[in-house]
Amino acid sequence: MARINDHFLKLKAGYLFPEIGRRVSAFCEENPDANVIKLGIGDVTEPLPPAIREAMHSAVDEMGDRESFRGYGPEQGYDFLRDAIAESDFQARGADISADEIFVSDGSKCDSGNILDIFGPDNTIAVTDPVYPVYVDTNVMAGNTGPADAAGRYGGLVYIPVTADNEFTPALPDLKVDLAYLCYPNNPTGTVASRETLKKWVDYAKANDTIILYDAAYESYITDPDIPHSIFEIEGAKDVAIEFRSFSKNAGFTGVRCALTVVPKSLQGRTASGEKTDIHPLWNRRQSTKFNGVSYIVQKGAAAAYTPEGKKQVRELIDFYLNNARLLREGLEAVGVKVYGGVNAPYIWLKTPDDQSSWDFFDLLLQKGHLVGTPGSGFGASGEGYFRLSAFNSRENVEEAVQRFKMAIG
Amino acid sequence: MARINDHFLKLKAGYLFPEIGRRVSAFCEENPDANVIKLGIGDVTEPLPPAIREAMHSAVDEMGDRESFRGYGPEQGYDFLRDAIAESDFQARGADISADEIFVSDGSKCDSGNILDIFGPDNTIAVTDPVYPVYVDTNVMAGNTGPADAAGRYGGLVYIPVTADNEFTPALPDLKVDLAYLCYPNNPTGTVASRETLKKWVDYAKANDTIILYDAAYESYITDPDIPHSIFEIEGAKDVAIEFRSFSKNAGFTGVRCALTVVPKSLQGRTASGEKTDIHPLWNRRQSTKFNGVSYIVQKGAAAAYTPEGKKQVRELIDFYLNNARLLREGLEAVGVKVYGGVNAPYIWLKTPDDQSSWDFFDLLLQKGHLVGTPGSGFGASGEGYFRLSAFNSRENVEEAVQRFKMAIG
Repeated sequence: MARINDHFLKLKAGYLFPEIGRRVSAFCEENPDANVIKLGIGDVTEPLPPAIREAMHSAVDEMGDRESFRGYGPEQGYDFLRDAIAESDFQARGADISADEIFVSDGSKCDSGNILDIFGPDNTIAVTDPVYPVYVDTNVMAGNTGPADAAGRYGGLVYIPVTADNEFTPALPDLKVDLAYLCYPNNPTGTVASRETLKKWVDYAKANDTIILYDAAYESYITDPDIPHSIFEIEGAKDVAIEFRSFSKNAGFTGVRCALTVVPKSLQGRTASGEKTDIHPLWNRRQSTKFNGVSYIVQKGAAAAYTPEGKKQVRELIDFYLNNARLLREGLEAVGVKVYGGVNAPYIWLKTPDDQSSWDFFDLLLQKGHLVGTPGSGFGASGEGYFRLSAFNSRENVEEAVQRFKMAIG
Repeated sequence: MARINDHFLKLKAGYLFPEIGRRVSAFCEENPDANVIKLGIGDVTEPLPPAIREAMHSAVDEMGDRESFRGYGPEQGYDFLRDAIAESDFQARGADISADEIFVSDGSKCDSGNILDIFGPDNTIAVTDPVYPVYVDTNVMAGNTGPADAAGRYGGLVYIPVTADNEFTPALPDLKVDLAYLCYPNNPTGTVASRETLKKWVDYAKANDTIILYDAAYESYITDPDIPHSIFEIEGAKDVAIEFRSFSKNAGFTGVRCALTVVPKSLQGRTASGEKTDIHPLWNRRQSTKFNGVSYIVQKGAAAAYTPEGKKQVRELIDFYLNNARLLREGLEAVGVKVYGGVNAPYIWLKTPDDQSSWDFFDLLLQKGHLVGTPGSGFGASGEGYFRLSAFNSRENVEEAVQRFKMAIG
């Protein structure tokens, strides 16, 4: 009989968001008239910018004419998109990334999970705590961890706490790690990594032969000009990092699906016998064999985000969500809640009042305010006592949410 | 230093199609005026049907209005599409498959590779020979094989030859296998599995606790009313099979990207300790964690293939390619070439004249006829001496190709 992958059985409960979904559904069934406002999952709400829609319409039309019809595209993405990305997102910021180091994909979540395909066993792997659950769960599935302990921490992973106590700055590991996940602007805390912090990490990685898996899905929310948008803005990072980017949160592509991963050609790992070997051809082979490229129509839409019009419209979207974040932050502070993030990121990370547990606060907000957020403990043991709010919503809902916070907490 | 997945180093040369691409590019560079006709990779050439384009335009418009805007969709696919698939592709054919057993994805190639995530080590795995290379290569990557021998066969896999000698009917394995890949209508041979053949396999699977990974990406090309379109038309198959389907070759979605995988709820595997366990929740967890659903716009397009208009237009597309296949078959037979397939499939599988090797015949066709096909040996050792032609091309090119065959071979 076919043997299953037993590592799946180590996974704790459901993935965080399905669990939230279950609790909200139960509440709504009991309270069918409640107008629940969801500030939980980080899902955009505003329309796709017109320049992007126009490009997609035109791509659909191209598919209707056999002269311009497109079948299989390059698994790595079309040059028109890879070139735009390399130029606008990297070279324009002084990061020396070339188009053929960019792999277009259907999602950063997918890539940050699939990347483990190219790595072997026996790697020491570090994650921050709290952390985006996908990094952890995909390592569990790949057999890179032991079982979870009572606090939800999996054996074999190196957890790096990021809390108010250390100003949400991840300390360098006190041992040699082979792979380290960093996400900045951070999901879930909404905090950023300074140039100094990133430089320390790159230097550590160079000294310890670490590969940094850098998730920059929220880089477009950075408002502070001193904060790097890409790890490749740090000298030497091309030898030690892979970067994940997405069109989800800037261009509003959560339902459209487009992302990218940068695998520099100078990045190396080692074989079982200790020989150094290039990482780029491994990911290229993985993608060529197990992926078939992103929809042509979607790639045309993504490319439109780099036109002057597209850039302006995407900027307006981001500014809209950042203003939501400001309103949430100010509203919470006004009722005495301690908040972090929300300045260079679409997430607010708040300390629960009276040291309530994250899930208790979740239930209280849902019951008393008909508001949904994300329990910090769902992101890791060090997230206990914290709570995440997302700025992705209509202005009306955000303003209403602020009023409800005042009633529920104030 | 990060240890790579050493299994990647066992992979032989490039993936088949990139290797063909390299040879064709070299030829075109030396012969810039040659008008090369490509009958190699199975990529559609005709425009996307109007009903599908219309649905996609309308979905793009929906994304422009915040009331109808869609962010993250269900990872498993939207109900409107899963329902249409369950009804039209399965229930209408007497296959008792429900919508929640259907997982919409961005490609059958992706799914047939990713499915290995949920299976553990120590499975005995059977493939036909010749075979779609992705089944083999993804098993190599997953560490389920030893290294390749001189003929390109990987240690640990059970190869089931399908050649003219056994009329391309895969014999049941003479040992107990845990996973078996079957693809019908077959890529590359263009042959089909009769109801009797499938029943024998389902019975074998039931007796041996085998899971059949059934790739039905080309089912819409079946013209013979006695040939099953789905393995689930065979009684008992729900307990032993997973089926992969695609919109690539019927609706012309190779560049649009949509597919589906059916994982029946009654399907079981075993844990390391021998307990029986359901497969459906494992795939659901895999997809929820490592995938984010297919573009809403693409799913709307796929759903339009199930409307009366869409069905008619898709049927016309398929008939067009089937007529191409007929022309190729008849043209080759007229010059004395022995051909298989091409009746219930868009592929022609031919025996190379004078027992030439597959790659020698590839080079001969390219040099003398400026024609590109796919060497049978690229699909496995038993494909040596065979050659695949794809019917995906314009009528004009197919007619021209038939003339060139006559010159090059006749």
